[in-house]
Amino acid sequence: MPVRRSAAAAATSPPVPRSRLDVDARRRQLLALGTALFGSRPYDEVSIDEVARTAGISKGLLYHYFPTKRDFYVATVREAAAELVARTKRPEQMMDPLERLRTGLDAFFDYVAEHGTAYENLLRSGIGSDTEVAAILDETRETFSTRLIEKLAVRDDLGRLALRGWVGFVEAATLGWLGSRDRVSREALRDMVIRVAIDVVKSLERKS
Amino acid sequence: MPVRRSAAAAATSPPVPRSRLDVDARRRQLLALGTALFGSRPYDEVSIDEVARTAGISKGLLYHYFPTKRDFYVATVREAAAELVARTKRPEQMMDPLERLRTGLDAFFDYVAEHGTAYENLLRSGIGSDTEVAAILDETRETFSTRLIEKLAVRDDLGRLALRGWVGFVEAATLGWLGSRDRVSREALRDMVIRVAIDVVKSLERKS
Repeated sequence: MPVRRSAAAAATSPPVPRSRLDVDARRRQLLALGTALFGSRPYDEVSIDEVARTAGISKGLLYHYFPTKRDFYVATVREAAAELVARTKRPEQMMDPLERLRTGLDAFFDYVAEHGTAYENLLRSGIGSDTEVAAILDETRETFSTRLIEKLAVRDDLGRLALRGWVGFVEAATLGWLGSRDRVSREALRDMVIRVAIDVVKSLERKS
Repeated sequence: MPVRRSAAAAATSPPVPRSRLDVDARRRQLLALGTALFGSRPYDEVSIDEVARTAGISKGLLYHYFPTKRDFYVATVREAAAELVARTKRPEQMMDPLERLRTGLDAFFDYVAEHGTAYENLLRSGIGSDTEVAAILDETRETFSTRLIEKLAVRDDLGRLALRGWVGFVEAATLGWLGSRDRVSREALRDMVIRVAIDVVKSLERKS
């Protein structure tokens, strides 16, 4: 998806000669900047003027890459989601379900530990809801969770709700952990959410 | 809290003679209208003009009760949270923990079934986060969950994270259920989240 957007941006680029790589590199630079800004401050406190100034480009060029501030924000969320999914790619090849779950969760907690405030801002409720942001989150949750607990990804409707529930458990516990990292080790948190996953799977098996 | 705001509003009321009851009744009417509007459409699509027109009052009078659109929105969230908490008040007196949990969850699902879209809009992620809305939600979650599972409300840090996690499980599974109400009964969902609560409590007991 990002590639296609960059290509579109390149097609309508300003007259300055600009290689394809330039456009992609610029886009990556802007996304990294956006992730840093939106991740550390509320959305309303980040201005397009400030982004352009910090990036050392004109507002016009910034709008060329991202037509509105909202588009810019959504693109940073999409980028962050893609990074999280990429990090948990490896566990898919693992045969042992428990090892896969543990490795995937470690990758997740690494990610959250690095992007604490951004993760918090993204998941905390805002004013009203946003369809596009919600859709990116839902898709990421599904990809992430079915990779981790294939067994729970049953075709059964109650099983699907249980899987969503478990992801909600991990997210809520993680948000709580970000505020008490000095008192609860990452390993203790990880082992707890693994126990919950195992209990949920067992409980669904007993039911069916 | 709402009483104090109404009193303040009454003190600076327009010159038209207006009884205390009038002010409170008007405030309640506006909050009910706001809940209906914000609950059925995204925040950005609700305008103060429309609210005033629908309520049959001037924009000036509306701003008198709620200085900004955001204040108005936050007040409707606060009102909804207070209603949810009030509904789960009874279980507190119950001695049997399982009965308490079941009754509290039934009240919660009644509430969600009534306010489906509003509940979804509130919990779905938006553009950026809002400190005040997040604080209301966190407080409601804590009141609600400690009422339901007193046993989980341990002073232990990991136990606290488990309680937060379980609330996240209930919320995520409930959001999923709103989209599959025709295929999963409320009782099946309720029994599942109860089993998870029991498993979490047991697992924490084994650990300590």
